Amino acid sequence: MTQTTECALRAKEAARVLAAASAGCKNRALTKAAEAIETDADAILAANDTDMRAAESAGTDKAMLDRLYLDAARIKALADGMREVAAMPDPIGQVIEEWDRPNGLHIRKVRVPIGVIGMIYEARPGVTADSAALTVKSGNAVLLRGSAGAYASNAAIVRSIRGALVREGLPASCVELTPDRSHDSVEEMMRLTGVIDLLIPRGGAGLIDRVVSGSRVPVIQTGVGNCHVYVDDSARPDMVHRLVLNSKLQRPSVCNAAETLLISRGYPHTAELLKTLHEAGVALHGDAAVCALDGQALPACERDYAEEYLSADLCVAMVDGLQGAIDHIARYGTGHTELIITEDGERAAAFARSVDAACVNHNASTRFTDGGQFGFGAEIGIATQKIHARGPLGLRELTIYKYLVSGNGQVRE
Amino acid sequence: MTQTTECALRAKEAARVLAAASAGCKNRALTKAAEAIETDADAILAANDTDMRAAESAGTDKAMLDRLYLDAARIKALADGMREVAAMPDPIGQVIEEWDRPNGLHIRKVRVPIGVIGMIYEARPGVTADSAALTVKSGNAVLLRGSAGAYASNAAIVRSIRGALVREGLPASCVELTPDRSHDSVEEMMRLTGVIDLLIPRGGAGLIDRVVSGSRVPVIQTGVGNCHVYVDDSARPDMVHRLVLNSKLQRPSVCNAAETLLISRGYPHTAELLKTLHEAGVALHGDAAVCALDGQALPACERDYAEEYLSADLCVAMVDGLQGAIDHIARYGTGHTELIITEDGERAAAFARSVDAACVNHNASTRFTDGGQFGFGAEIGIATQKIHARGPLGLRELTIYKYLVSGNGQVRE
Repeated sequence: MTQTTECALRAKEAARVLAAASAGCKNRALTKAAEAIETDADAILAANDTDMRAAESAGTDKAMLDRLYLDAARIKALADGMREVAAMPDPIGQVIEEWDRPNGLHIRKVRVPIGVIGMIYEARPGVTADSAALTVKSGNAVLLRGSAGAYASNAAIVRSIRGALVREGLPASCVELTPDRSHDSVEEMMRLTGVIDLLIPRGGAGLIDRVVSGSRVPVIQTGVGNCHVYVDDSARPDMVHRLVLNSKLQRPSVCNAAETLLISRGYPHTAELLKTLHEAGVALHGDAAVCALDGQALPACERDYAEEYLSADLCVAMVDGLQGAIDHIARYGTGHTELIITEDGERAAAFARSVDAACVNHNASTRFTDGGQFGFGAEIGIATQKIHARGPLGLRELTIYKYLVSGNGQVRE
Repeated sequence: MTQTTECALRAKEAARVLAAASAGCKNRALTKAAEAIETDADAILAANDTDMRAAESAGTDKAMLDRLYLDAARIKALADGMREVAAMPDPIGQVIEEWDRPNGLHIRKVRVPIGVIGMIYEARPGVTADSAALTVKSGNAVLLRGSAGAYASNAAIVRSIRGALVREGLPASCVELTPDRSHDSVEEMMRLTGVIDLLIPRGGAGLIDRVVSGSRVPVIQTGVGNCHVYVDDSARPDMVHRLVLNSKLQRPSVCNAAETLLISRGYPHTAELLKTLHEAGVALHGDAAVCALDGQALPACERDYAEEYLSADLCVAMVDGLQGAIDHIARYGTGHTELIITEDGERAAAFARSVDAACVNHNASTRFTDGGQFGFGAEIGIATQKIHARGPLGLRELTIYKYLVSGNGQVRE
């Protein structure tokens, strides 16, 4: 049996114990895990140093190095994140609904953990602590498969967390990190039906595509966000400038940043908007109508409409009003976040009805699609598929339910 | 482009229209579809006759022929089923939850259709009408791929339904039946990511395994039920006999029938129970302890513990009380329905907490795991996986949600 399968089977055993753990026990374990991460900071930083040196000598680029890097402040942030999750209400055991049937049966729909969650992720060691906190709190065991280049950091963080779990009487195997750093472990996790109940890939489009198309285990697709901002005829120019700049530039490298700006032909302040964007350092890729209006814009090709730039680039197209925007988004959207800026409530409602995405915003930045901003406390990713859960995945989205049917001897006629 | 892909793309277009259709429009269309199925009964029966003749000359077995067969009464039942779905409340547009954020954002979580649902199913033409009714009512377009041997029947039913949809102003393509009767169409549906949003396989274990392990499109696993009945020390013998017989024999061929009986060593009426089962015509496959007690029982092997007999066979094992039952079910259960018979409320609660299944019953037949019995009106299958939905899949389980985020120009700092 391989190391990854062994880890998964241990996690499955641990999940049975964790599913029955009280909120108090889970919260104490997470609070102790936060303390342990701080107490063990030197060991974690030494492990991170090993990963950083290896990455530097492998010529890893600066952005990637920054994602890998840990210091005292980042470790404190990890620990604080775990404490925040500990302080949140426990979703497990909640009676979602209950009803009686005419034959006297009483049916309760009760929230329960999913079981074993497999996390396949890239770079940031912070994801290790976040994932452990969210899964343990929601009663799920987790099998972590971080990137090979962050293995020492991840292993050190997991060691601290497992120590705290054990001190609180929970199995260490609630949090497993596979020691197999080869690609085999990813392939293996995708085949462990009956052991892993759900896979969450978190990282670049390549990783997510590979897991979505290859996995036999159910997957929640996260991340890819070709988010659009549609500027309607009646939009207020000041609000348009503020929302477009925030949606594009507040943090361009993340999935909820805007990638395409759709402007209604009836909006009277387009030239001014394009000027503001240039001044803010946004590189515009315009359709023919935009390029005719703006000599600085680069001509957009079909690929630009589909592109998730994750940079200060922005595709800009003129559309035939609301319906034009809706049709464009139906064609190119990835179901993440779509924004309409308008003073017309009816058009906002029509946009909300017709656009199919996890989040449809009206006069609010696309950057709000985030577990923290939604009030979920934390998130394990942002889902863009159409089943189970959409948008920010918090504690509740890591649960499912079972039906408890109680009677006094009823049989079916 | 193949016929199946063309059907799927038409369904995707239709889904956009159907998602915005009012409850009244959908209900009228389904009511008219029910009428059309009755009006067109002769044509449907003639088509069914074609399928029946082909099946007979291919030497199809009697049970299968019965599943394929339609007559006037069965057609009326199909139409009545559609009327029942039409009469149910529309889940679409329901505000599941709404809240305000400190920055003034208002977030609404609104129930929406999933999009395009692919149904891959075997034999019964009744599934065609049920699936169309449930998907249309829940605002989803459906691509049907029934078994090749039921194609004429399915096509005739779909023709009637589509005519009614069009008369009510809905696109015919809300309900598509692929004309490709080869296995290629199944393989193709499993690869249509971005077009089909969810696949529901319904049929034998072979079909379900194939779809679950091969599909790139998200799948809801339905059907396989290795359901256990656990008889606790304190169970009342009369209730035990009634519940075990009903769970096993009321309809042995379906997934919510019991397949394994676990008896606590502390239950004092085992011999009497085994005798009752023999008298009722149940073929017992016992473990060593059962065979020692009962000369008629066949010795059970490992395979019997995992077997979904779907017949009057029953595996019987003695267990070390509640924990023995829980451990046995954790090992062999398929997450469908598990029943404890006990007069001890604390043990029933412990069983409910520890057993991981879609439905955990206390003193009520396993046969109640059914959309109609739950009060859902109808069902498209019974889910046994751990994400999205578990147990009977009714209208609400064919939906998802989107977040509508409204503000007055909020940006993220």
